Amino acid sequence: MNAQVDTVPVSELADSLCQAMADIHRRGWCDGTGGNFSCVISRDPLQLLMAPSGVDKGSVQPADLIQVDGRGTVLAGAGRASAETALHLMIVAATGAGAVLHTHSQAATLLSRYAMALHRHGRPEPADDAMEAGSVHQLLLEGLEMLKGLEGISSHHQQISLPVLANDQDLQRLSEHARPLLPEAPYGLLISGHGLYAWGRDLSSARRHLEILEFLLEQYWRQLLLVAATGIGALP
Amino acid sequence: MNAQVDTVPVSELADSLCQAMADIHRRGWCDGTGGNFSCVISRDPLQLLMAPSGVDKGSVQPADLIQVDGRGTVLAGAGRASAETALHLMIVAATGAGAVLHTHSQAATLLSRYAMALHRHGRPEPADDAMEAGSVHQLLLEGLEMLKGLEGISSHHQQISLPVLANDQDLQRLSEHARPLLPEAPYGLLISGHGLYAWGRDLSSARRHLEILEFLLEQYWRQLLLVAATGIGALP
Amino acid sequence: MNAQVDTVPVSELADSLCQAMADIHRRGWCDGTGGNFSCVISRDPLQLLMAPSGVDKGSVQPADLIQVDGRGTVLAGAGRASAETALHLMIVAATGAGAVLHTHSQAATLLSRYAMALHRHGRPEPADDAMEAGSVHQLLLEGLEMLKGLEGISSHHQQISLPVLANDQDLQRLSEHARPLLPEAPYGLLISGHGLYAWGRDLSSARRHLEILEFLLEQYWRQLLLVAATGIGALP
Amino acid sequence: MNAQVDTVPVSELADSLCQAMADIHRRGWCDGTGGNFSCVISRDPLQLLMAPSGVDKGSVQPADLIQVDGRGTVLAGAGRASAETALHLMIVAATGAGAVLHTHSQAATLLSRYAMALHRHGRPEPADDAMEAGSVHQLLLEGLEMLKGLEGISSHHQQISLPVLANDQDLQRLSEHARPLLPEAPYGLLISGHGLYAWGRDLSSARRHLEILEFLLEQYWRQLLLVAATGIGALP
Repeated sequence: MNAQVDTVPVSELADSLCQAMADIHRRGWCDGTGGNFSCVISRDPLQLLMAPSGVDKGSVQPADLIQVDGRGTVLAGAGRASAETALHLMIVAATGAGAVLHTHSQAATLLSRYAMALHRHGRPEPADDAMEAGSVHQLLLEGLEMLKGLEGISSHHQQISLPVLANDQDLQRLSEHARPLLPEAPYGLLISGHGLYAWGRDLSSARRHLEILEFLLEQYWRQLLLVAATGIGALP
Repeated sequence: MNAQVDTVPVSELADSLCQAMADIHRRGWCDGTGGNFSCVISRDPLQLLMAPSGVDKGSVQPADLIQVDGRGTVLAGAGRASAETALHLMIVAATGAGAVLHTHSQAATLLSRYAMALHRHGRPEPADDAMEAGSVHQLLLEGLEMLKGLEGISSHHQQISLPVLANDQDLQRLSEHARPLLPEAPYGLLISGHGLYAWGRDLSSARRHLEILEFLLEQYWRQLLLVAATGIGALP
Repeated sequence: MNAQVDTVPVSELADSLCQAMADIHRRGWCDGTGGNFSCVISRDPLQLLMAPSGVDKGSVQPADLIQVDGRGTVLAGAGRASAETALHLMIVAATGAGAVLHTHSQAATLLSRYAMALHRHGRPEPADDAMEAGSVHQLLLEGLEMLKGLEGISSHHQQISLPVLANDQDLQRLSEHARPLLPEAPYGLLISGHGLYAWGRDLSSARRHLEILEFLLEQYWRQLLLVAATGIGALP
Repeated sequence: MNAQVDTVPVSELADSLCQAMADIHRRGWCDGTGGNFSCVISRDPLQLLMAPSGVDKGSVQPADLIQVDGRGTVLAGAGRASAETALHLMIVAATGAGAVLHTHSQAATLLSRYAMALHRHGRPEPADDAMEAGSVHQLLLEGLEMLKGLEGISSHHQQISLPVLANDQDLQRLSEHARPLLPEAPYGLLISGHGLYAWGRDLSSARRHLEILEFLLEQYWRQLLLVAATGIGALP
């Protein structure tokens, strides 16, 4: 993935990022100040433009955004950087992404837990983060035209594997566990019981990937219900 | 919980409260003039700013709001205070909340009844309010990152217990039954077959708690369907 | 029910009716030019203000509305009166309603057919309208606070019976079959496989009743799924 | 079907088409730059006005639209014509449609696969497009008033058969397989795992048909769940 965002003025990126957050909030994908959204504004040194922690993503204004460096330190703007900045930075470093969009939707939350439960079926629950940390599962998606909205996919017959990583309140550890999954991930990663990270070469590509992955997850859940109810069709 | 709202001018609070009601109505959480929404404008003596009873919450204007005292008597503005003002006042008194948001969503209505039915399984229905009044149940919520949107929750491993109280047309009695539950409640209380009360230190905190609890209830219902349909995962 | 709408100027009613239709369309309750919406502008002689047949209810403007008399003849405005005007007129005559809102929502369509199927369980389908015409069933609704949004209901313990009438392309015959049901109906009537008629003393009362009945129907369907999936709770 | 669109100025059609795409995107029917939307601007020689490939349909502006000829070659405007232009052109040629709207909704995606799975029940999946290409199934729809929103349908008793064609990345081959289905199709065609094509004599007729077919598909899926859950009613 090539970075092509460096030439867009920061003020224009700030407007686009706020518009994206407002649209994403309107769909109910980042309720309760949840979610986090960033754009790369400089590659060398690495700098991100993002919303500060704890604000309502439906009404945040360009002037409220912060700029952080490659260690997550705030360089400009008022407010704190979310602990999740560590994972944004890891995704940017590992994939060359120009924008990272992290949502908390119903479908992503539900299916990330389903993937874990499917794997664990009949085994005891781990007692804490440390035991579970780094546990990796996946959702397989195929047969859908919408897959072609992901860069590099040219047929509905291509199967993608969306990785699902155990949730962890230690974001440095979570990011380290995410690192080996990112180069092969289909511009998306699920964190169990938590939500989706989607990314792309620039903000509009990341938005496209986000909408595609959210669509595929919502479809996955409807298909699970329909197949279970009717006995017709294979479980996805 | 500290009260920090007292210094915001009433006119500004009125604008924010009307914006909150319009947003909440747009989501279908207070249809048919349902729901009720208040902010504390003075602690001593206690005074609330709120919508009058029976108006459409999607289009109510700042000039339509009423001010009530600690007994629910209207001090300013045209219109009647809802009987539910008693529970708003009880929540403010018992928790120090600066704003109380009461919604009638699909998920809150459905799951409040589910919690009662789960408890009552195999027993006869009570014949009237008096028999049922004060009956208390709960929904347990855990394992979800969104829990961290509730003030004081710092890990998805923390379990919260959302109390569910039998509905009662006698609001004074209902409020008395709610009183002992409020200090431990996770900024929220369900009334069976009726809806959700959510609160917070100020209006934006109450909005955050409302969005979080509504998200968790919608997730709970989807998970009940998915686990029942597939046999994968534990019932929440 | 008293008529209190006669004193509102027609131009103001036209604005309010168009706003109501736009809001109702935004919720997906009158897709594909479906649905029909009217206000009484004169009682003696009876005259209705309504949208013409076949227009998109999401974008219709005040100048597009038509006025019809008590036989459904167009008195003013361009466009044809829908055949369903007959049922609007019957509802106004039988109940004194000042406004009638007819929607085609997912829940109303689904549950009106469910009520018929429940009754017919194990019997053959009728071959045509004439055989089925006048067949009447019901949905019972109780235990929900939202019932109190219907005028005259003061407790969630009151049970209402929403009548469900077989669909019929002969609107005069359908209206005659509806006539005896209307005085006792809870400001609403379902037509099987077709949709909901809701009404009220004036437009805002009719909107309130519509939102309440649509909420109750959506809740009914979710409860059917939940009870069937979990075995907890009684079928509504 | 008669073409009546030729006399509308292109600039007006462009405004209407962009408004239609924005509304359709708002409903979640063309996420992730999915879907494709065209109007006929000339019959002889045949020319279409449409959105270029790969743009967000929620924000595309009139100046961004392209004009293509009867072979799909871009005549005016910046951007590439989607490969799906072939099927738009085939629909226009075979039916005389003045507008074609292609969406990727949840219900269309789900039920198009359900129709294929129902047919294939117990048989092995084909290995590739070539084996599956041209495979045709159907969804039968009847008993619903909303059917009357389709031009030429005058009673809810009329049954329609919505064709479902296997998906195929070779759009020329897909269009050839669609050709014999189009004259009898109810202004709509499903492509399996892909989405819906809806059309009409002009843009407003195509929008009406799209809303009707999307409504019917959403209703079909809810009815499948309800009948499976309760055992009441016939599977649609």
